[in-house]
Amino acid sequence: MIVYKSTDWVEALRHLRASDIIRLLLKRVLWVGLYAAVVTGLVVKYDKLNLAVDKEFFSFLGIMLSLLLAFRTNTAYDRFYEGRRLWGQLVNNCRNLAVLLHARLPANDHANRTYLARLLSNFPIALDGHLRQGVRFEKLEEADAGFVERLQQVQHVPSRLSALLQEAFERLLREEVLLPNHLITLQRHHEALLDVAGACERIKATPIPFSYSYFIKGFVTVFILTMPFNLLDTYEWLTVPITMLGAYALLGVEMIGDEIEDPFGKDSNDLPLTQISNRIRANVHEILGVELHEDVRTLADVPYSVVF
Amino acid sequence: MIVYKSTDWVEALRHLRASDIIRLLLKRVLWVGLYAAVVTGLVVKYDKLNLAVDKEFFSFLGIMLSLLLAFRTNTAYDRFYEGRRLWGQLVNNCRNLAVLLHARLPANDHANRTYLARLLSNFPIALDGHLRQGVRFEKLEEADAGFVERLQQVQHVPSRLSALLQEAFERLLREEVLLPNHLITLQRHHEALLDVAGACERIKATPIPFSYSYFIKGFVTVFILTMPFNLLDTYEWLTVPITMLGAYALLGVEMIGDEIEDPFGKDSNDLPLTQISNRIRANVHEILGVELHEDVRTLADVPYSVVF
Amino acid sequence: MIVYKSTDWVEALRHLRASDIIRLLLKRVLWVGLYAAVVTGLVVKYDKLNLAVDKEFFSFLGIMLSLLLAFRTNTAYDRFYEGRRLWGQLVNNCRNLAVLLHARLPANDHANRTYLARLLSNFPIALDGHLRQGVRFEKLEEADAGFVERLQQVQHVPSRLSALLQEAFERLLREEVLLPNHLITLQRHHEALLDVAGACERIKATPIPFSYSYFIKGFVTVFILTMPFNLLDTYEWLTVPITMLGAYALLGVEMIGDEIEDPFGKDSNDLPLTQISNRIRANVHEILGVELHEDVRTLADVPYSVVF
Amino acid sequence: MIVYKSTDWVEALRHLRASDIIRLLLKRVLWVGLYAAVVTGLVVKYDKLNLAVDKEFFSFLGIMLSLLLAFRTNTAYDRFYEGRRLWGQLVNNCRNLAVLLHARLPANDHANRTYLARLLSNFPIALDGHLRQGVRFEKLEEADAGFVERLQQVQHVPSRLSALLQEAFERLLREEVLLPNHLITLQRHHEALLDVAGACERIKATPIPFSYSYFIKGFVTVFILTMPFNLLDTYEWLTVPITMLGAYALLGVEMIGDEIEDPFGKDSNDLPLTQISNRIRANVHEILGVELHEDVRTLADVPYSVVF
Amino acid sequence: MIVYKSTDWVEALRHLRASDIIRLLLKRVLWVGLYAAVVTGLVVKYDKLNLAVDKEFFSFLGIMLSLLLAFRTNTAYDRFYEGRRLWGQLVNNCRNLAVLLHARLPANDHANRTYLARLLSNFPIALDGHLRQGVRFEKLEEADAGFVERLQQVQHVPSRLSALLQEAFERLLREEVLLPNHLITLQRHHEALLDVAGACERIKATPIPFSYSYFIKGFVTVFILTMPFNLLDTYEWLTVPITMLGAYALLGVEMIGDEIEDPFGKDSNDLPLTQISNRIRANVHEILGVELHEDVRTLADVPYSVVF
Repeated sequence: MIVYKSTDWVEALRHLRASDIIRLLLKRVLWVGLYAAVVTGLVVKYDKLNLAVDKEFFSFLGIMLSLLLAFRTNTAYDRFYEGRRLWGQLVNNCRNLAVLLHARLPANDHANRTYLARLLSNFPIALDGHLRQGVRFEKLEEADAGFVERLQQVQHVPSRLSALLQEAFERLLREEVLLPNHLITLQRHHEALLDVAGACERIKATPIPFSYSYFIKGFVTVFILTMPFNLLDTYEWLTVPITMLGAYALLGVEMIGDEIEDPFGKDSNDLPLTQISNRIRANVHEILGVELHEDVRTLADVPYSVVF
Repeated sequence: MIVYKSTDWVEALRHLRASDIIRLLLKRVLWVGLYAAVVTGLVVKYDKLNLAVDKEFFSFLGIMLSLLLAFRTNTAYDRFYEGRRLWGQLVNNCRNLAVLLHARLPANDHANRTYLARLLSNFPIALDGHLRQGVRFEKLEEADAGFVERLQQVQHVPSRLSALLQEAFERLLREEVLLPNHLITLQRHHEALLDVAGACERIKATPIPFSYSYFIKGFVTVFILTMPFNLLDTYEWLTVPITMLGAYALLGVEMIGDEIEDPFGKDSNDLPLTQISNRIRANVHEILGVELHEDVRTLADVPYSVVF
Repeated sequence: MIVYKSTDWVEALRHLRASDIIRLLLKRVLWVGLYAAVVTGLVVKYDKLNLAVDKEFFSFLGIMLSLLLAFRTNTAYDRFYEGRRLWGQLVNNCRNLAVLLHARLPANDHANRTYLARLLSNFPIALDGHLRQGVRFEKLEEADAGFVERLQQVQHVPSRLSALLQEAFERLLREEVLLPNHLITLQRHHEALLDVAGACERIKATPIPFSYSYFIKGFVTVFILTMPFNLLDTYEWLTVPITMLGAYALLGVEMIGDEIEDPFGKDSNDLPLTQISNRIRANVHEILGVELHEDVRTLADVPYSVVF
Repeated sequence: MIVYKSTDWVEALRHLRASDIIRLLLKRVLWVGLYAAVVTGLVVKYDKLNLAVDKEFFSFLGIMLSLLLAFRTNTAYDRFYEGRRLWGQLVNNCRNLAVLLHARLPANDHANRTYLARLLSNFPIALDGHLRQGVRFEKLEEADAGFVERLQQVQHVPSRLSALLQEAFERLLREEVLLPNHLITLQRHHEALLDVAGACERIKATPIPFSYSYFIKGFVTVFILTMPFNLLDTYEWLTVPITMLGAYALLGVEMIGDEIEDPFGKDSNDLPLTQISNRIRANVHEILGVELHEDVRTLADVPYSVVF
Repeated sequence: MIVYKSTDWVEALRHLRASDIIRLLLKRVLWVGLYAAVVTGLVVKYDKLNLAVDKEFFSFLGIMLSLLLAFRTNTAYDRFYEGRRLWGQLVNNCRNLAVLLHARLPANDHANRTYLARLLSNFPIALDGHLRQGVRFEKLEEADAGFVERLQQVQHVPSRLSALLQEAFERLLREEVLLPNHLITLQRHHEALLDVAGACERIKATPIPFSYSYFIKGFVTVFILTMPFNLLDTYEWLTVPITMLGAYALLGVEMIGDEIEDPFGKDSNDLPLTQISNRIRANVHEILGVELHEDVRTLADVPYSVVF
């Protein structure tokens, strides 16, 4: 994810190269420019500059299209931000779980503290992989002997991690470390793990309904194709840059919407899942008072703008 | 549901044939074209091209109509997405219920594990049918002997499944497998089953208020009928394609809204309820450690774009 | 409530007569037509057709008014849909209460089952009346001897029903049918009864702030009164139908908003509270295994489009 | 708060005098009229009617301003309605608390019933004063001897009332009237008291960010000042009423937004906090079976449109 | 944060100097004026005033840009207000925690009351620093000997404070001051502390996606640069002030959005975190009946408009 000081306009330009979608947009705008140039050339050659154009009608269609694109933008952004909010909840609930367990576990119970800190830290790391290219097992903490190996047999890794955590609670209850009421206080945070996982899967699996997407793409395409004909009588060769400006605006909104609505990729606009996972790991270990290797701990401070 | 890589515009076109609503839209646009051709022909024949037209006023009406259609689009999409979110909650709560039960049931209690896995898996399958053409009893798992047969006597199948689950909890409480506090932790997820069912019934049974729907349909119809008269003085025979473009935009937004707002059909924009149900079944069985027949398990991996 | 297949435009027209608000709208549009005819007649007679008109400014005012009406539409619809969602929650919570009680009550405890089924069924029926013209006591179930008579002494009937239910829970707790933890699981659904009642009272008692309502009504009135003067120079006698079209659009949005925002009437756009109440009664009796008289049970299947 | 039958346009006019903000608006519109008259007079005198005006650009600025005002309107209304919803929650939670306490307290425990009914009734009355001009102690019920006097020593009265209620719960627990589980069921409603109080304080203390408010006020001012110059070439002396119409629209939206966003005043658009408090008092006493003096009880039926 | 009586337009102007962003805006508007003057000068000099301009197209682009800026404004304001709402929740939950603890702790248990009041008061003070320039340890209360010193060793101070509070609950449970059920009632408020902290971190760390920000900045820049060319043919030298008005509108919305979306700075639009923290401290001490030094207590009454 690109992080930037939003009030600095010059710095914003410097990040330009990092954004794939902006570059693809500029490429498409160039193609539209070429098209506009061909149209203009033909019209000029055959001397038909006095096309009758109803600019009011064209403008009405444009405003209607703008409203549709505003709708598109809102839905895409809502998904982006819902994704961010979900990972924020993951942070909160992992911290709260760690706080509850820390306060209840005896201060010198290193075995349980270490097991729980590692188990909890694995959840966001596994979810990160699960939402992207597949769980990266080599990144997980070995909570106990053979832990990662057993996990590799499983279809849905986040569910299994959640189940292992719940098994640990039941075991601590039998060992009378936890009281029955702790099941209830822990539950509010424990259930959030799978809720976040399921909601992220939903965002990933459900793009905007196909009909809307197709309909808007079709509308944008036709609108851009007719644009030069509406501008030619006024601007002649200036039609080319002005069509490009219009195409920049319309294609830009549409394309950014397409990209933003799945925030779980590795593009420059996507969420810094790996950094958030590392930060959770560092927090959980600190709260539970478990040592974490210096190399791993410092990963929590990698800025969000680094993609890895 | 059609799933597509939204940044690929060419692939989007390929799905065109699969969308009933887009085809119906194109048919209606053709009818509008015919109407515009007749109007144009008559006007040209009687040589009345110099109609006085107040294009500003027409444009103002068009923008007002666009705002209404934006409202329509938002309400329709909200229902679509609320439906999707509800089924996402169903996934989360079934998994969380399975996790809680798994951690508490003795590892070797196959009878209860199997019964609960099947019972829980039946809920989304029954709800899927309940929201569409009626429960398809042959798709349900036989949780115990005569299970499906007894269920066929019932008016509201999801309520009964929820009640059977609650009965199982009370039985496990009497058998001291569960503690009283487990009633509270299980409850948070158990109640979600009927909440989701009721909310889906609400979405299905409550279209946008009739007055709005009628009002917008009336407005769109009148607006399209007057469109050729506003364009004739500028475009003559070009009026026909341009009217069709305008009709495409207006009818399209209205019709897609109508279709999207009930997401529980079997159209290409509707939600993949069957796949989600199968996925829940596979997850729940895996979490509870209950074998699932290979044929059934693989149904969970059928892509969302297959309708069945 | 009118229920319709929203993709069928012809059927939509057939329901026209059922909608009071649409008929009132058409009547007002006729009055505007008369006004426009008088204005046009006077202007034509005194030969002042060349009024100077700044159509851009008029169009800007119209767009601003459209944005206000979009705001009006959104707030009105939000209330309508919040009302619907609240009654959906009533359905869910009554079912969930019934499920919890059913699983805990001994299967043969007919007395308690009957009492609770009737008590619970009475809540939505009483709330329906409370929100409309007053509780219709003859529609309530006699939960025990003198039940309805005692209820008639009460100022706020829904509160009393909720209190009777809570008394029943405390009694069952003393009789050791319920465990203390059941108080907690039942509570989540029991509290929803009065929450829904209070929220419906709020929707009913709080229209959009008077200033907005007055301001928009004033703006619409002035705008429609000036409309003929803006159209006369272009359209002469065509001004009359075109003014009527504009008035249809503006008045329509405003009037439908006024009507929709209180969804607890008996108009064709209002919510089918009676049917929902009957459906809850049938569900609750089925879940608790209590017989319901055939005549009463079938009321649950009356389609939403019947008003009673 | 003015309550009105929103479909009756004539009645709406009758309330006009009651609304301070509408009167202030009309006064400001008159000043704008005076300004427009001076501008018109000067321009006519010096014979400069042929000002060049780019009406498209002016119209674009106007639409942009309209969008900003739509944003302003939405945020203001959201606060108004959030305030209303919060007081609705207060109603619900007071009723639910009363229901829970009623069902648990012995029917003949008049002392506790009276104390709790009065204590609970005092909360909304104190909050009403706290949000307006300060707590009106003479309006509070004397829950026990010296109650009100002790309360007058306190800085934050709602917190103290909430604490007294919680103390009562702990006392009833020690007296074994309540079970430990009742702490949990009561808590869900008890916590809502301070949540509502805090949220109302937030709405009161946080207007829309100063930058937006200033920015919009500046934009509206400049836009209205330039308006006559844009209209003069078309309308000459008609510029004056038309400028006033434009100013009515722009100032009206801005000023109503300013007024609505703090709903805790005593203006005609503000919330009927006093009536809601009286209604809660009547409900709570009825539920707990405590007598309430006839004079006080009937206050609950004072219509919302009376300000006191 | 600037607090103002929003209906007073003159007072609003007086605050102008306090707002950095408004001053920066005015500076940029002056630069645009300079640019417009240069363009106008060159065009006048070379006598090319009759530029062909398609004002409709320019106006359509402007409206589309306005819709994007409306989207920008909404997202920025949502973050501002979410930040405010989160700190409001902090107030509510600290008060509710204090109420629960007060009612349970023996009235004369000064040691625990003092420790808990100070610990709780430290949370918002630490979070304030954590969100801005780093925790200001000298502002914290010494809850017990060496308290602040130990805290300085910690990476994530809010987590540690939350953990200390939870440890205190477990200790009070062991000392039988609290019952097990109190863990559940306290938990609802205790968990909110870290939830608020995490959500504030999220708002701070996640600006609007870079693509949108860049895209809108680019669009605004190009639009303003072309503005003089669209106005020159009508206005000649008046182009300069009119371009500045347009730039004021467009830049203003964009820049205020940038500034508002991170509400945790020390600018005049930012949230009064320090005052809210002081107010929580005063409330918590009063509820728990713990003395607070007069100097510290009066900090709670510093008006929000003082920045410190």
